[in-house]
Amino acid sequence: MANTIQDLYQKYLATSHQIADIRYATAVLEWDQETYLPSKGAAARSRQLATLSEMAHKLSTEKVYGDIIEELLATGRLTGKELINVELSKENFDRQKKIPSKFVRELSESISGAYHLWIEARRKNDYDIFEPALNRLVKLKQQEAELLGYENHPYDALLKDYEKSASVKMLDNLFEAMTAPLKELLKKVLERGSVNDDFLRQFYPKQKQWDWGIYLIKELGFDFEAGRQDISEHPFTTNFSALDVRITTRIDEHDFANMNWSCIHETGHALYEQGLPYEDYGLPSGEYASLSIHESQSRFWENCIGRSKEFWQYYYPELQKHFPEQLGNISLNDFGKAINKVEPSLIRTEADELTYHFHIKIRYIIDKELIGGTLSTKNLRERWSELYKEYLNVIVQDDNTGCLQDVHWSHGSFGYFPTYSLGSFYAAQFWEKIKEDQPNALIDVQNGNLKDILAWLRKNIHSRGQQCKSSEALCEKVTGKPLHTDAFLRYLNEKLL
Amino acid sequence: MANTIQDLYQKYLATSHQIADIRYATAVLEWDQETYLPSKGAAARSRQLATLSEMAHKLSTEKVYGDIIEELLATGRLTGKELINVELSKENFDRQKKIPSKFVRELSESISGAYHLWIEARRKNDYDIFEPALNRLVKLKQQEAELLGYENHPYDALLKDYEKSASVKMLDNLFEAMTAPLKELLKKVLERGSVNDDFLRQFYPKQKQWDWGIYLIKELGFDFEAGRQDISEHPFTTNFSALDVRITTRIDEHDFANMNWSCIHETGHALYEQGLPYEDYGLPSGEYASLSIHESQSRFWENCIGRSKEFWQYYYPELQKHFPEQLGNISLNDFGKAINKVEPSLIRTEADELTYHFHIKIRYIIDKELIGGTLSTKNLRERWSELYKEYLNVIVQDDNTGCLQDVHWSHGSFGYFPTYSLGSFYAAQFWEKIKEDQPNALIDVQNGNLKDILAWLRKNIHSRGQQCKSSEALCEKVTGKPLHTDAFLRYLNEKLL
Repeated sequence: MANTIQDLYQKYLATSHQIADIRYATAVLEWDQETYLPSKGAAARSRQLATLSEMAHKLSTEKVYGDIIEELLATGRLTGKELINVELSKENFDRQKKIPSKFVRELSESISGAYHLWIEARRKNDYDIFEPALNRLVKLKQQEAELLGYENHPYDALLKDYEKSASVKMLDNLFEAMTAPLKELLKKVLERGSVNDDFLRQFYPKQKQWDWGIYLIKELGFDFEAGRQDISEHPFTTNFSALDVRITTRIDEHDFANMNWSCIHETGHALYEQGLPYEDYGLPSGEYASLSIHESQSRFWENCIGRSKEFWQYYYPELQKHFPEQLGNISLNDFGKAINKVEPSLIRTEADELTYHFHIKIRYIIDKELIGGTLSTKNLRERWSELYKEYLNVIVQDDNTGCLQDVHWSHGSFGYFPTYSLGSFYAAQFWEKIKEDQPNALIDVQNGNLKDILAWLRKNIHSRGQQCKSSEALCEKVTGKPLHTDAFLRYLNEKLL
Repeated sequence: MANTIQDLYQKYLATSHQIADIRYATAVLEWDQETYLPSKGAAARSRQLATLSEMAHKLSTEKVYGDIIEELLATGRLTGKELINVELSKENFDRQKKIPSKFVRELSESISGAYHLWIEARRKNDYDIFEPALNRLVKLKQQEAELLGYENHPYDALLKDYEKSASVKMLDNLFEAMTAPLKELLKKVLERGSVNDDFLRQFYPKQKQWDWGIYLIKELGFDFEAGRQDISEHPFTTNFSALDVRITTRIDEHDFANMNWSCIHETGHALYEQGLPYEDYGLPSGEYASLSIHESQSRFWENCIGRSKEFWQYYYPELQKHFPEQLGNISLNDFGKAINKVEPSLIRTEADELTYHFHIKIRYIIDKELIGGTLSTKNLRERWSELYKEYLNVIVQDDNTGCLQDVHWSHGSFGYFPTYSLGSFYAAQFWEKIKEDQPNALIDVQNGNLKDILAWLRKNIHSRGQQCKSSEALCEKVTGKPLHTDAFLRYLNEKLL
């Protein structure tokens, strides 16, 4: 780069870094809110978050920043990573620019309010408490969709916050392709009769679960000098740089599975964040590719590895040492069956790998209908029950195990849910490719050697950040094929039949 | 207020609140840095803090904010609390305005760097590692003094960050007034012979200390719904609103006193913050009066109450129940003597109530000399030893127990130390007044009833925020007398002789 371009790029870097600083600061405040905030501190925290969101948005839509980006592109002389970064920043700038900062503040404040009402509604098991706030959020998100613009469906505009190239059309096709084969597979699996998993719901003491979780997280490769684990109501991963990645878990003393697989799931997210190039802090090349790719990492570790018989061939004896009373007399075979038990149920986060995707499809349908204006929040409870009957043949008994079970909508996240299914599809494609590139992969897992698999992910996925510009392009580059559901269906059939 | 003034005041409120939001967000990031930050996350955290500091400074010196303040004052129609708030905001605006935002960022970054070098220097017990960073900070603070302006001594300009009406002249007088009587008292106390406090350094298990600390903090009136306690390397108090106050402690299993009185000290700070009017969030009337007043609260609880025989008449049996092995055979009388043992020593934070103020005087002298340019950081180690010999007649053995012992300078805090002594002076004056207003105060303490004393502090000190405009004015209003050292000397003589 010539001198003037270098100067200009330095200015671009400086502002990009500052925007990242404020966004990461916001994430610190959110992390604290979910882990340590005393109850009376909630109101002030909401306004602090709103102010930071507004400031980050203001800075990232300032004319001078846009001008630097335009000027850099106009030179026609940027190449490689620099070009990609500036192009992606332009995309982001143009998108952000369509939303006024005041709107960002209003949305942030509405979200804080909605979140606290959701908490209260959960406490009283009564959706009606949450409904007015949800209605308000839906209206704001519809407004956001109009501000952002779209061609076919307002939901398309919102999807792009989570998955740039997703659309109603694309998702309709994928969910369509998935539904019949999964229904067929479910039927076959259920015909085989029931599986006993009661022993997973014995008494597992809190401290022992915590110790086991920390052990497992370390084994998976989480760097505790560049992150930590804490307790929160709902497990999540966040980060304030690639060298400061925070995961959380929750512990139910009568449910070992919940803690164990949430630990593996969040560690999957965390390994991705810790593998992003720290030197590209605050730049697209230093940020995760998309939420679907993020979910591919968490769901890869949680399911492809963490529910495989090879993984437990190595770790089950270790687990038995941690819980001799609970698991000493349970065979590896019985354990393996229990942790892969398929059973239609009411709760998404506790669902098996198969029925999980019906939970997602239901949320996708409701998302679309709410944002499309064909479903009113007043009728959400009934619509929820109807869809659970249709897809999972289960009867919803109350709001907490029904339409109040997910935190996402209270966070204003409409368009997030589909990325969970996309994540599973990507994970299966990556897993096939890993086994092709590393024929010893399964033997490695059997021997407790997870390093080579992590190295593959680091090289092919993590270190690239957004350099492929989209999830699909990354998938094509890495696997040679576009996103599809076949690998996932193959994976599931092989495992469950 | 007429409508236009009301509109204007609303605008003033909105910006004041936003500035507070960013400052409190900064405090959250700092709290996390001291409690939970993983080691590799330090560098990114430094730049996030620098960006937030710069943004807060920019917002608080924006012309439009200054204009609103001027306009409001020009109406001549503000009264009461509104008038005081706007007047104090103007003072603050004018002061901030003298410092460029770039300088704020540079200082923030230098402080982060210096802090990490101080940590490393402590680890290696070698001041030379920290010296260049300290030298850089001194230069920056000298520059800051020049930017702020002063009449007599550059240190005067810096003092005002901590204590608005303090000056070298005022402090010289106070420390002068204190020195001879304290030396005289020290001589008398030491002539009485030695006191045994070995039992305070038995093994006190970590968890039991923690439990005792939490019990005590609650007894003192800390509201755990509006705050929490965590562990950090150096105990501190911070807050993100009056309803979110965080204190920290540290636990040394061979030093009960350290944890116990640091808990009481920080709780004293916290009770002040929790007692500030939440409805005045972000306004001078909702903020602490000054650091000296803050220290008066912590030192009042730590010493006037927490080292009194009346307090332990009630709480010692409870303490013995928590530590039967360690204290079961120690009489209340021996315990009371041990916790008030006077002995010249090297470490400020472990010093008794008497010699403590010589530690402060030494730091005050060095502060003045460094900022005045008559002492080079290269000669700090020697100067430190010389002063410890002069005032405390002790020989400094190494840097960790010498000039590296305090974190303050690495935080860029020059002018902070004197507030510790001022805090003790104010505490003694308030304590005399409390006993005058509540003749039963000591009996209340004996009965474990601390509520009325806290109520007095809430009414007379906490709820006023900065409404008296200065510590001295507050002191005059509350006690009817200006700041002086007599009450403190009376208090100490009565206790120790």
